[in-house]
Parts: sequence; structure tokens; C-alpha cells
Amino acid sequence: MTATLTTLVNHQARLAARPVGMATAANWQFTEEAVAEPAEGGVLVKVLALSLDPAMRGWMNEGKSYIPPVAIGEVMRAGGIGRVVASKHPDFAVGDTVSGTPGVQEYWSVPAAQVARSSLSKIDLALGSVTQWLNVLGMPGMTGYFGLMDVGQPQPGETVVVSGAAGAVGQTVGQIAKISGCRVVGIAGGAAKCDWVVRELGFDACIDYKTGSVREGLKQHCPKGVDIYFDNVGGEILDTVLTRINLKARIIICGAISQYNNTTPVAGPKNYLSLLVNRARMEGIVVFDYAQRYPLAIAEMAAYLKDGRMKSKEDIVPGGVAAFPDTLNKLFSGENFGKLVLQVAEA
Amino acid sequence: MTATLTTLVNHQARLAARPVGMATAANWQFTEEAVAEPAEGGVLVKVLALSLDPAMRGWMNEGKSYIPPVAIGEVMRAGGIGRVVASKHPDFAVGDTVSGTPGVQEYWSVPAAQVARSSLSKIDLALGSVTQWLNVLGMPGMTGYFGLMDVGQPQPGETVVVSGAAGAVGQTVGQIAKISGCRVVGIAGGAAKCDWVVRELGFDACIDYKTGSVREGLKQHCPKGVDIYFDNVGGEILDTVLTRINLKARIIICGAISQYNNTTPVAGPKNYLSLLVNRARMEGIVVFDYAQRYPLAIAEMAAYLKDGRMKSKEDIVPGGVAAFPDTLNKLFSGENFGKLVLQVAEA
Repeated sequence: MTATLTTLVNHQARLAARPVGMATAANWQFTEEAVAEPAEGGVLVKVLALSLDPAMRGWMNEGKSYIPPVAIGEVMRAGGIGRVVASKHPDFAVGDTVSGTPGVQEYWSVPAAQVARSSLSKIDLALGSVTQWLNVLGMPGMTGYFGLMDVGQPQPGETVVVSGAAGAVGQTVGQIAKISGCRVVGIAGGAAKCDWVVRELGFDACIDYKTGSVREGLKQHCPKGVDIYFDNVGGEILDTVLTRINLKARIIICGAISQYNNTTPVAGPKNYLSLLVNRARMEGIVVFDYAQRYPLAIAEMAAYLKDGRMKSKEDIVPGGVAAFPDTLNKLFSGENFGKLVLQVAEA
Repeated sequence: MTATLTTLVNHQARLAARPVGMATAANWQFTEEAVAEPAEGGVLVKVLALSLDPAMRGWMNEGKSYIPPVAIGEVMRAGGIGRVVASKHPDFAVGDTVSGTPGVQEYWSVPAAQVARSSLSKIDLALGSVTQWLNVLGMPGMTGYFGLMDVGQPQPGETVVVSGAAGAVGQTVGQIAKISGCRVVGIAGGAAKCDWVVRELGFDACIDYKTGSVREGLKQHCPKGVDIYFDNVGGEILDTVLTRINLKARIIICGAISQYNNTTPVAGPKNYLSLLVNRARMEGIVVFDYAQRYPLAIAEMAAYLKDGRMKSKEDIVPGGVAAFPDTLNKLFSGENFGKLVLQVAEA
């Protein structure tokens, strides 16, 4: 193995400069490094697939957030799935499939200290495919699950609205809300996405914000108002939903993809006083807070995948590290359909 | 008594037109009516003092809110304290002091149906003065108490920031937070108000937004960040506090006095994504939801008034109904110092 390893080259995408607005080629630098054998206690992982998420745009900005920004010159942070190709740690063997945060590169060398901090974990492909482990069984699925169940606390019969409905988080939220006995209305861009969440995922309705009025759609499809709004987009859609919320409504702030590439300040929800009128609550979620409870949620989701109550859709883009910049931007143009995954190597 | 009653004239202020921006003389119409004897089951109340509150500006606007707007031509809605001068209801006797929503007029005729709906209640002047019953023992006090305790859930050692600190709600919030073992920082306009909440009410600090930077004040006086923000003002101050909140912070949305006279849309909090980063919560309060629990809270506040742990300040303006329009506007210019009360008759 050692002989083979040392001939390998690791291709990487690094943050070259902080973007203003949408990221361009100038924000990235591609580098090559020799692959080294792991030191004592370390593990070497060959990256199979990377998760591309809206939150990555935030990590590229300077300033305090829930995690530090990616430093200039650093390999871009990204979650992903890989296979162990060399191990000097007793808990990991060559051939194990693992989940973690390898970054945008082909080989992830995990030092002993990081292994000890549980930065990688073995995953069971019997529960779901590599790409499902980046979707409903991964961070987006956990975000949707805990955001809806813990922050939203859905009750049977309530109306749940979710934006970015065909996205990774949205598809989980909608399906878990259906399983919880709620009426579920999605908001998504384009007829194909809207059809899919209704026909395949069983949402009660979906509003196409690209061709219709969100306001009219909410009137039509939420005749009893909105009890829970799971917000992935911010901006005008958040403002419109605020006009339709019920007493004691819960708004889960998960993201604001409409605002991430702004060069002007974020648009604040000008209808926020609807929270006062309706004694409603707007609350943020960061998935890492629920890490202790991932295993139980994963088991639950895997059971739903198995019994058919939950489906998943991934938008898998081949091309590896070189294709990363263009693929990431698909998220912000809304071009992706389903959880966006960058394939780095064949599983 | 009957002979006397029929010679009385009731002066009233009615909403003549909905204001655009700050209310002016053109928005009000003054009327006179003969005072009639109460019908069976009814009560006639002579108004002693009216509560002037920021929320009144909202009641003057058209559109859905937590209560219907005041209709054009209707006596302006206002809470107040009065004395029973005639009664055909067994629970009320001449001379009883009562609290309710008499509106801006000198005599309040309460029909039987309204009495049955508990629209007026007897108050005990041994617990507090007439004007304290409009302040810490009244709606503002209840708003501050339940907003802080139920929505904010303060823990000893936490830092609580309250805007409109010298106002009716603010003074209650700050003092209850101190009693709860919190560090309390007020935000108010002018040195006199700031001095008063620190020296008299025992706040740990107060930021004068008129002469200083709220951002710098928060840095200086909240070295451990902000756990609870009780917001009475909205606008830029809300946005600034959002940059200083802690993990799991609670923001109580009680009002937005900076926005009530806007002729442009309300300014949404552009830093609302701080809720996401900090897994924080922004929640509205409407005091009426806690009506069942007023008696216990009043008893608690009255005990604090008695043992000196709570003080109150009212800004009592004489002049009766005719003085109502100008007095109301003092709230929005920040001219009032303490709970603003319009005196209608001598107690």
C-alpha cells in the first residue's frame, strides 16, 4: 500500500480571495500535493463525494459566525464521504466508508488528534447510498429533522410551509412533516421541482415562486394559515409568509440563500411585527448542536427510506475537484434539483 | 343621584381620520354627549385617569392586528381608571374604583353585556395609587412581567437589555430582571432618564441613545454579551443589539415605537440572521394572553412596591380629554418621562 500511496497526487481547491457577491474563478486556487502516509494514529481517506451546501457561501466570508471562516489559502471546507485507504488507527480499517469534513480535495489526511475528536465516523451503506449519506442521512437531513421536530414542534393537523422544498433540507422537512400528520406546502422554483415534491414526496401542494405569486399560493393552499414555516431562503418569501402566520406560529430560520450573494446588506423581514401580533416565534437552528442525537435520527430516517415513507433525490455532478466552482454556483442560481453532490471518485 | 347625572355632559375624543405618519389635530374630533343613567345590569364610571401607550398608534391604523382597529367616528380606545358613579349591577357600588378600557372620554357607560365579559374590574388602592394601577400594576406592568418572565425566562447572572428603559414597560422589565438576579442594562433617551433608571431603579447601566453610540455602550456594559433583549423600539437599536446577542438568546418583541409613525414600510431587522448563528429566538408578546394570571402578578408587584424593591414613575399630564392629542404625541417624541398618564378628573 505504501508504495502505491506515495505515487498519488492530491488535487485541491483552495480559497484564494473572499468573494464579493457570487464567487468567480478568481476566488479559487487549484493546488497539487503528494499524498503522504498517515502518521501514528492517523487515517488517510480517499474522497468519494462532497456535499455542496448554501452554508458554504457564508464560510467564505470574513467575520464571526457559528464556525470560523475558511482562511485564505486554506482548502475549501466541505462535508463528504470517503473510503479509508490507509490507517494507523485501531478503529479504522482500509475499506471502511467514512463521513466527515474532508474539504474540496481528493485525499483527506486525518491526523490522530482529529480522529480523536470524532471528526470522522464510519457509515453503514446498508442504511443508504453514499449520496443519501450526504442527503437525508447527512447534515441536510439532520438539519431538517431537528429544525422541524425540536424547534418547530409540529402537531398533527398543523400546516407546515417549507421553502427550498426540493433542496436537501426541504425534502426532508416536508416528508417528516407529512409523517408527523401535517399539511405540507412547499415553495420551489420551477414546475419540475414542484411536481416532484407533490407527486413523489407527497406534499399537499407546492408553490412555484418563479411563475406564480407566493401570496396567492399561500392563500389558496394554506386556507387555515401557516403554523410552521421552515425558511431556507429569506428575503421576499420570508416577508410574504409572515403575513400568513397563525397565532403561536414557529418560524425556523435555517438559511437565507436569497441573501448570501448580496453585495448590499441582508434584507431584514419588514413584516417581523407579525411575530408580535401573532405571539409567534422566529428561531435559528444550527445542526451541530444536535450531534449527540444524530445516531437515533439517522436510524429513524433509514427506517423511513426502507419502508418507502421517505424518498430522496440527489443531483450528482461528476468532474471532481476541477468542477467544484461551477457546481457550487448552481445552488445559488437554483439550477440544482435535489441535494447537490460533487462526485470526486467512483464508489 | 339620578337628578345630578342627567345634567352631566360627557366630553369625548373620537378618531376622525386615520393618520399618515404622526397624528395631527385633523385626526381627532371632539364631541359632547349627555350622560345617561345606566340600564339594568350596567354601570356608569367617571373617568379619573387614562393610560397613553405606544400601542394606541397601531389601533389607529386600518388592518388586521391583535385587536380590531378603532373605527372612524368611534371614541378613541384607551385603558383607564375610574370611579363608579351609578350602578345597576350587584357587583359594583357607587364609589368603587375600577379599571378597564373607558376610551378617551369623561364618562364611561358600561352596558350589562360588557360588565358580564369582565370589561371592568374593581381595584384596591391599598396596593397602589390610581396612576400606579396604570403603570406597574396595570397593562404595562403586566406586559413587562409576563414578557420577561414567560417569554424571556431570565436566569440569575444573565444579562438583560431593555429599550425604552424609563418607559412604563421598561421600568418594570428592568426591576423584575434585577429581582431575578440579572445584570440589567437600559437604553433610553437623555441623561435624566438614564440617571433615573440607574440611581433610582438600580439598573447596572443605561445607554443614552441620543448622545452616545448604542454599539459602544453595549460593548462596554455587556461584556458577557446579551442573553435577553426586551425590545420596545425596533429599528436601528434592535439591529444593533442583534450583533451582540449570545447563544440561545431570547428577544422579546413588545413594540417598535421607532416605526409606528413611519410613512415608509417598517424597517426589518437586517441582522436577523444572528438568530441563526446564535440559535436565538425572537418572540412576540401580547399581554391579553396572560389575563388569567394578572391577579397573581399584581399581588407580586404590589409586594415589591411595598417592600421598596420596586419603584414607579408616572408622567401625569392634566388637562383631560382636550389635552389628549398633544399628550399622546409626547410618547413618540420621547418627551414623556415615566408612564404617560392623562388626568381626566381628580381622584
